[in-house]
Amino acid sequence: MVREPGVQSDDSPEKRPTLDPWHGHYAARAADMIASEVRALFAVASRPEVVSLAGGMPNVSALPLEVVSAMMADLVTRQGAVALQYGSAQGVESLRESVCEVMALEGIAARPDDVVVTCGSQQALDLVAKVFLDPGDTVVTEAPTYVTAISTFAAYQARVAHVPMDGDGVVPEALADAFDRLRAEGRPAKLFYTVPTFQNPAGVTLAAGRRRRVLEVCRRAGVLVLEDNPYGLLRYDGEPVRPLRADAGRDEVVYLGSFSKTFAPGLRVGWALAPSAVRDRLVLAAESAVLSQSPLTQLVVDRYLRTQPWGDQLKVFREMYRERRDAMLRALTEHMPPGTTWTVPEGGFFVWATLPDGLDAKAMLPRATSARVAYVPGTGFFANGDGRAHLRLSFCYPPPDRIAEGVRRLGDVVAQEIALRDTFGVTGARDGRGPQSPGPELP
Amino acid sequence: MVREPGVQSDDSPEKRPTLDPWHGHYAARAADMIASEVRALFAVASRPEVVSLAGGMPNVSALPLEVVSAMMADLVTRQGAVALQYGSAQGVESLRESVCEVMALEGIAARPDDVVVTCGSQQALDLVAKVFLDPGDTVVTEAPTYVTAISTFAAYQARVAHVPMDGDGVVPEALADAFDRLRAEGRPAKLFYTVPTFQNPAGVTLAAGRRRRVLEVCRRAGVLVLEDNPYGLLRYDGEPVRPLRADAGRDEVVYLGSFSKTFAPGLRVGWALAPSAVRDRLVLAAESAVLSQSPLTQLVVDRYLRTQPWGDQLKVFREMYRERRDAMLRALTEHMPPGTTWTVPEGGFFVWATLPDGLDAKAMLPRATSARVAYVPGTGFFANGDGRAHLRLSFCYPPPDRIAEGVRRLGDVVAQEIALRDTFGVTGARDGRGPQSPGPELP
Repeated sequence: MVREPGVQSDDSPEKRPTLDPWHGHYAARAADMIASEVRALFAVASRPEVVSLAGGMPNVSALPLEVVSAMMADLVTRQGAVALQYGSAQGVESLRESVCEVMALEGIAARPDDVVVTCGSQQALDLVAKVFLDPGDTVVTEAPTYVTAISTFAAYQARVAHVPMDGDGVVPEALADAFDRLRAEGRPAKLFYTVPTFQNPAGVTLAAGRRRRVLEVCRRAGVLVLEDNPYGLLRYDGEPVRPLRADAGRDEVVYLGSFSKTFAPGLRVGWALAPSAVRDRLVLAAESAVLSQSPLTQLVVDRYLRTQPWGDQLKVFREMYRERRDAMLRALTEHMPPGTTWTVPEGGFFVWATLPDGLDAKAMLPRATSARVAYVPGTGFFANGDGRAHLRLSFCYPPPDRIAEGVRRLGDVVAQEIALRDTFGVTGARDGRGPQSPGPELP
Repeated sequence: MVREPGVQSDDSPEKRPTLDPWHGHYAARAADMIASEVRALFAVASRPEVVSLAGGMPNVSALPLEVVSAMMADLVTRQGAVALQYGSAQGVESLRESVCEVMALEGIAARPDDVVVTCGSQQALDLVAKVFLDPGDTVVTEAPTYVTAISTFAAYQARVAHVPMDGDGVVPEALADAFDRLRAEGRPAKLFYTVPTFQNPAGVTLAAGRRRRVLEVCRRAGVLVLEDNPYGLLRYDGEPVRPLRADAGRDEVVYLGSFSKTFAPGLRVGWALAPSAVRDRLVLAAESAVLSQSPLTQLVVDRYLRTQPWGDQLKVFREMYRERRDAMLRALTEHMPPGTTWTVPEGGFFVWATLPDGLDAKAMLPRATSARVAYVPGTGFFANGDGRAHLRLSFCYPPPDRIAEGVRRLGDVVAQEIALRDTFGVTGARDGRGPQSPGPELP
């Protein structure tokens, strides 16, 4: 689910070209499809003795499985001939209506006609990239950004340019500067990809007061905004913030949504809300990619939204994840050695931590897994090799006591790394410790 | 589900570029994504008074829906935490084992490790194209060929070169000539895409005696075979023929399979069996495209295969489709005017008909739908505009009496077209009529 570009696993195709009779036959873009080092990590992380703070898996066991089971059985009995048949490439119409009601909860007014249902929002991201990106095109993203977005853009041979964030999200002036610079370099940005709310991986939210400014910067530069909002409904404290799409012109934003975090990722139901002309092309691209999504899983989601008290279930999720976030933040304060800092997310799944000076999260990972705790090193979230000082800690999956134990183990590992560093005479450790506004810490 | 490249519908993006603020921002490949004229046809064809011989939808209502319903309910109750969670990009392991047993029924020996589960075999086709095709690359296919394969290759800006078939499928010498010619033109073929058994749309099967020769021709030319076999288990008479993959080297063929016709398309479960190095790249491409397939629908298929008498169900499907095919063939013999010919498929879903000289299946379509019968004109199955004399008739979906009625209506329409043609003085009508070995009729 997460991967780290730029590093080959032992199982990578690149390691054994001589065994491959089709070596030399692949498309140029296939060279940019990179094997996941983190996949091997996940094998380790899934061992029961390891506390995994690596994965971004929602805790689906909090769902009322008996209810979902009965609902699904009834659906197949009553609507089997539709649910088990081919569907339209755009998606089931009643679900697209329900999707609009879900988006309305966050302030977005949209028509079902402008929604395309996709295989998770990941497929929406892939289709947008397919429709817009020629080789060499540039996508601007936050730094750090969602790991699989980087590999998706790479698979279409696009380049990623990062823009720094502070504790209030992406800095509008830096965004404007990046657009200007890219234009001056003759490679104007085509898309601005952003996860503005409870960002993956940084846990940061773009401040309400900056959102119109960000839209304005993109409008002036003629750059399409690609807003990815899988976590917006999972806020644990603070004031709700409206998605960019809610206050933008209909043609300014392609908005991506998902039921993976608010219902279940195994159904693979996400969506894109797009300007009408873009939607037409996304539907064509979807048809060419998969003919249609599963009507069965679409109808399951639609029926869940229409017949179940899913708002109450969302409250259950929020309570559960808030407790886990709090367990992580408490444990970080308790166990992290001085010089370690971290973001304090108001929602979502992730805390972004910064190690004391001179420490390397990637080099530390084998020692962490030996100590029975796993995380994702920061380098995977950058297209340019940055991020060695950082790690992403997920609080979504393990229960609170396991999170606390995992962070305790991690604190020990970091302390040992500091001792190693000091043995080798590296200096410059910060003496601050604790929760931070990531400010200049986020590159 | 089917589309016709090269023709724009009224709703096409190309018709209103001035309304699209992102006009000029799309990738070059987006220009090759073509709106489906046939989509509008399907709206007409789905009116209850119209007999649709157009769609390729299997008749899922023949499934024991109560059994599928109970199975699904039990699955979610017992394995919900897995079924509703993210899965691996390669697919559920136990399903990949079951897939190997299904392929073994047709003579293929394969390891679960070399199988990638996809969102229908359509996604497998898309991922193979993504991994292999650079803009300008050439794919060789049968003429005619599967309509969405043409649009999938077009979406990666590849060119399609057709090779003629006769009643025994693709002609090996013509294939060798095409490879030679393309190499001489400086654009050697990268893939040979083939539906060798009960071909869509022609209903023709590559003769057993030609299969090794076809493999040899591809081997000599260094061309990877992309074998698409969705209908292989739906044979109604004649001797079973082994897939190309069954008698090929492991590295010579990427084989595509699907549960859409043997179980249910709405689950969107298909697969690719690929050489190991190719498989690695397909998994990376799948991860980048959708993260993972739905574990729920994969587990449904796996459980169906492991717990239900699906071989018996397959017999039910075969009996049902045989009856429908026979109804179509009888009705064609009874109602088609002289000069009309058609193929006699031993399995699958499709009959390929050729109109009397001077008639145009595409021009005739509006008159056919007015007469309450629909089909797909042949032009959609060619990349080069050929096929106006042909139409594809599907016998999979309507019951036998409706098929007979539809063909009767079609016969009237053809007779009227002949009268029109004769009024305008076009000559050259053949006087033969009836089932044919498509022989030289298939271009």
